Amino acid sequence: MNSDWLQGVWSPALTPVSQSLEIDLERYAVHVKRLLDQGCHGVALFGTTGEATSFSASERMGALDAVLKAGVAPEQLLIGTGCAALADSVALTQHAASNGCLNVLMVPPFYYKGVSDTGAASSFSAVIDRVGNDQLGVYLYHFPKLSGVPITTGVIDILIKDYPTQIRGYKDSGGDFSNTEMLIKRYPGLNIFPGSERYLLPALRLGGVGCITATANVSAGPSRAVWDAWKAGDDAADDLQTRATAIRQELEQYALVPIQKSLLASTLNDDEWDRIRPPLDGASKADREQLTRALDAIDFKVTF
Amino acid sequence: MNSDWLQGVWSPALTPVSQSLEIDLERYAVHVKRLLDQGCHGVALFGTTGEATSFSASERMGALDAVLKAGVAPEQLLIGTGCAALADSVALTQHAASNGCLNVLMVPPFYYKGVSDTGAASSFSAVIDRVGNDQLGVYLYHFPKLSGVPITTGVIDILIKDYPTQIRGYKDSGGDFSNTEMLIKRYPGLNIFPGSERYLLPALRLGGVGCITATANVSAGPSRAVWDAWKAGDDAADDLQTRATAIRQELEQYALVPIQKSLLASTLNDDEWDRIRPPLDGASKADREQLTRALDAIDFKVTF
Repeated sequence: MNSDWLQGVWSPALTPVSQSLEIDLERYAVHVKRLLDQGCHGVALFGTTGEATSFSASERMGALDAVLKAGVAPEQLLIGTGCAALADSVALTQHAASNGCLNVLMVPPFYYKGVSDTGAASSFSAVIDRVGNDQLGVYLYHFPKLSGVPITTGVIDILIKDYPTQIRGYKDSGGDFSNTEMLIKRYPGLNIFPGSERYLLPALRLGGVGCITATANVSAGPSRAVWDAWKAGDDAADDLQTRATAIRQELEQYALVPIQKSLLASTLNDDEWDRIRPPLDGASKADREQLTRALDAIDFKVTF
Repeated sequence: MNSDWLQGVWSPALTPVSQSLEIDLERYAVHVKRLLDQGCHGVALFGTTGEATSFSASERMGALDAVLKAGVAPEQLLIGTGCAALADSVALTQHAASNGCLNVLMVPPFYYKGVSDTGAASSFSAVIDRVGNDQLGVYLYHFPKLSGVPITTGVIDILIKDYPTQIRGYKDSGGDFSNTEMLIKRYPGLNIFPGSERYLLPALRLGGVGCITATANVSAGPSRAVWDAWKAGDDAADDLQTRATAIRQELEQYALVPIQKSLLASTLNDDEWDRIRPPLDGASKADREQLTRALDAIDFKVTF
């Protein structure tokens, strides 16, 4: 790991939409600031949780502009810029970098399946080459259940050879901690983030750097507490991890994008939050109520 | 089936790219015309074979403009407009329709998996509602191995109820003919195309309307011969189908996008054709030679 690069507890922000399903820029910027206030070291814009792929490149650029205009520091942002189309990935990465957001999270193109390691690596190098910015920091986003294209060691090996200072990390949303462990051991020079707080402390102890976790939209505090305790060498870290995991377990009984939008709507008393772009469906009131009861039962309440 | 709607042998055009991986507009328009000359009833722009998802909405619109400017009739085109992002699908569909291309082929948003029938249906209705053109003809593109989102009867039932004149057909690239057969029987009002000439005659005999097939980029003639014989009530149809299937079987031993680009390069003596956008890889010379030998062995030669 490199301590000058990203680390800590990061949340991929949910993206609020208006009645016409346009990005609600005001609520979006407020939410990004809220996540920082809740203890996130930084916020990832336009990951899976942010319905990234449901928005066009120009919508995504407009949303980043709004967040920056609202005063969020570029250093606290990690911008999702991986698209199916090369031209879109290039445009988003250029736009982010030219606005001082030098850290990008890239999923490989996600339509074709059975893509080779060289093909997947080329999809990243084509973007890096076209953007041509030595200061760019690329975090590889491994979410094979959705992208259908795993970021294997074969892909990483090609990329770190060609871009040793630009390939900086890896978000492992594969859900298999043995893969995260393997990566941390094999690539001591990369900053590896598991994609769930469930693996936060185990990853930190092995040399991982934190987590980038969807559920930090409604429960950043418990994960941040794990991080702080671990950083301080506090024995409480294990209990705090158990607590963060218990909350996570309840949340992940549901599809995390709609259920968290629904929880935000109820917590903020703001039904504007309870909307989602197709193809995702909104959460039912019954699910929201059931989850709220389950969280009550473990003494957790979403609060901001 | 509705004889005023699309039918026949359609080819989804390959998309040639320049050295910088931009769409080669001139070669593209020439290729579309070539496919019509080869006997295709029409050409689908920007399907899976056309590397649709590897190009941005603006690149795709520019390519359609070039094809129309080259004199291809809008009625002979079926425009792939389904994207992951709602705004891109709307922009592409509006652009196509406003240029007289009223027939569109739509894959559902393809990042999220486990999408519900209502969610998948909403992804189509959100586009149709926003485009707001009564003359639009939507062909649903079922390719679950790549999109990860099947277009089930549940999805179709919702859509044909809400848009009885706009939902016109279905391209079944699922590879399971029993699904095609079920759809033809269940939806006599829809124009159903299998996604391979392998099923052309069987589909026609059940009430299907033709095929939309990748391999027509290099072998449209044999499929057109099947269609013509069937249309004429000629007994030769079965033998012609056996022939078309034999050619298909050789071609589909390879990834169809790169191998067909490679075959075009060799047939046209034009290496410009032998390029592909990431994440796909080009075909090896060894594969091209092996396939050419296999086609020779069944007396088939790619010619234009």
